[in-house]
Amino acid sequence: MELEQLIQSIPDLDKNASEAARSRQNELTKPPGSLGKLESLSIQLAGITACPTPRLDQKVVIVMAGDHGVTIEKISAYPSVVTAQMVLNILNGGAAINVLSRHVGAKVVVVDMGVAADLSNHPDLILKKIGLGTNNIAQGAAMSLAQATQAILAGVEVAWAAIENGAQILGTGEMGIGNTTPSAAIMAALGAAPVEICVGRGTGVNDEGLARKREIVARALQVNQPNPQDGLDVLMKLGGFEIAGLVGVIFGGAAKRVPVVIDGFITTAAAMIAVTMQPRLRDFIIASHRSQEQGHQKMLEWLGLEPVLDLNMRLGEGSGAVLAMSILDSACKILNEMATFSEAGVANKDGV
Amino acid sequence: MELEQLIQSIPDLDKNASEAARSRQNELTKPPGSLGKLESLSIQLAGITACPTPRLDQKVVIVMAGDHGVTIEKISAYPSVVTAQMVLNILNGGAAINVLSRHVGAKVVVVDMGVAADLSNHPDLILKKIGLGTNNIAQGAAMSLAQATQAILAGVEVAWAAIENGAQILGTGEMGIGNTTPSAAIMAALGAAPVEICVGRGTGVNDEGLARKREIVARALQVNQPNPQDGLDVLMKLGGFEIAGLVGVIFGGAAKRVPVVIDGFITTAAAMIAVTMQPRLRDFIIASHRSQEQGHQKMLEWLGLEPVLDLNMRLGEGSGAVLAMSILDSACKILNEMATFSEAGVANKDGV
Repeated sequence: MELEQLIQSIPDLDKNASEAARSRQNELTKPPGSLGKLESLSIQLAGITACPTPRLDQKVVIVMAGDHGVTIEKISAYPSVVTAQMVLNILNGGAAINVLSRHVGAKVVVVDMGVAADLSNHPDLILKKIGLGTNNIAQGAAMSLAQATQAILAGVEVAWAAIENGAQILGTGEMGIGNTTPSAAIMAALGAAPVEICVGRGTGVNDEGLARKREIVARALQVNQPNPQDGLDVLMKLGGFEIAGLVGVIFGGAAKRVPVVIDGFITTAAAMIAVTMQPRLRDFIIASHRSQEQGHQKMLEWLGLEPVLDLNMRLGEGSGAVLAMSILDSACKILNEMATFSEAGVANKDGV
Repeated sequence: MELEQLIQSIPDLDKNASEAARSRQNELTKPPGSLGKLESLSIQLAGITACPTPRLDQKVVIVMAGDHGVTIEKISAYPSVVTAQMVLNILNGGAAINVLSRHVGAKVVVVDMGVAADLSNHPDLILKKIGLGTNNIAQGAAMSLAQATQAILAGVEVAWAAIENGAQILGTGEMGIGNTTPSAAIMAALGAAPVEICVGRGTGVNDEGLARKREIVARALQVNQPNPQDGLDVLMKLGGFEIAGLVGVIFGGAAKRVPVVIDGFITTAAAMIAVTMQPRLRDFIIASHRSQEQGHQKMLEWLGLEPVLDLNMRLGEGSGAVLAMSILDSACKILNEMATFSEAGVANKDGV
């Protein structure tokens, strides 16, 4: 599989399936349009899956982990060791993403894309390690072009393995101390907003930390001079290994007509990279929620996506994605399970 | 059970349980506050249930049905016979509320509070019929004071039977062609907004129907002169039997420290009546979603409630309530199932 071939393989939405879903919505026993976003989402999901009555019974959230050389600049409220510790917490089922995934019936797949620790002895962890954390983006490129490509293709492999095992929808999640910094840099590089807007508090830096984080992002842009027309260039210079892997997950899902649900600030940065590389991907991505992380709303506007939920969350891990996957599932069940006016013997509108 | 006794029986939130939930949230393996509304809702639910780790495994949505004499004024896009037809559709499992309830694992309880048809031969329907529809509120009171009281107490009975059977959270739903008209009248009578704002398109009346609906609501207020300080007076003059029953469900839940989730325009009108009768009830009510029905946002502001979801829905039946119940359940599971920093061996914030 070559990257260029993958990029070209992304299909269009299936308009026939969308139209069939739209007309079925109008025959169901409810005032037309009264289920709001559940209706529009079901129509989009029909177009993505090329099926007028899509099913999302099998849900998988792919949590990709990686470390970031830029943490040496003290841009996070938590120490770098927490990445590996939280990966183990997720593998042990104790993190928020585990609780919420069990709640919605989603399987959690955890991938080591580049954690700065040896995690090779855990049987449930998928190992796609590209390196022991990225380089410090304040001093140069995060990774080589070969590493960026390798990480994307690893993400595609993970997505395809999940789909092979039955996944009908993919959620994206991440764990990587410091990763709001590369995400803010990507957002700024792709022109979604000025640096001051792009950089927020992440897991909760204080005012001093926030000022430093802004300075570091500005420096990363200055040092690396990423080309905003070239998603791969932006990724390689500013990204993280987990962000690159998530770009691959988005490509992998869309290539197989499986909807991909993005989560918060980091996974949306991955979506911005992916859509820069292939604008057709936008139609296959569903924005799960509006993160409290400053700047996320501007990312969604840049992508032209409306989030399903707005719960003031800013945790990451895929926590918003799995909650939204349940809403998407309900939207599909409406199409599959509701009675029509004629089936139920219910009188339709009398035109007042 | 006397109504006055019921009103006085509503407790306060349990502050100790809320505080215990709040401190547990800060020990869980996530940045403090990063789960946003999931955290604040879990704290509220702890206070409602007087339990620091509440559980919402058993969910019930109570769908109350009734007809409205005011439909003779042609204020609805659907004919009155649809109320009974949709009750049967719900009993047969084909309506939106059935699909969404199955999705979230909620039981649907359907109550005939005052449908203008004989539905007595259906084994799953709870019969609390107060009358064959209300009187036309454009010409006088919807019901007698005795009927209003009887309907509220019937609602309490239904709620308590559900709680007796294990319900840990109650959703409110309704079915009643024409019932956005009494709801708008209640909203206007209680001073949430002027009539033009209170009256929206309901299931979808055209411009002419909307103008007529506004005129009818203004006339109902003029003819009945409800006392905005007296919830029972407003209910009896402008309400519906299903709205009165839902007032009872709210009282019944709160009296037993069971959270009550309101749905859209009609159930929120019931909440406004209930809170007028007993302001402490406000703390026990959770607003599930912001309805697309014009005026609903002003109702929520009047109540001082923030909705969990905003999905552009305006279907009623309890459809928004059950979707939100699933989010509330996830909020409780976070408290119950997530690991703490010390349990997971994860380093806490280092103060940057």
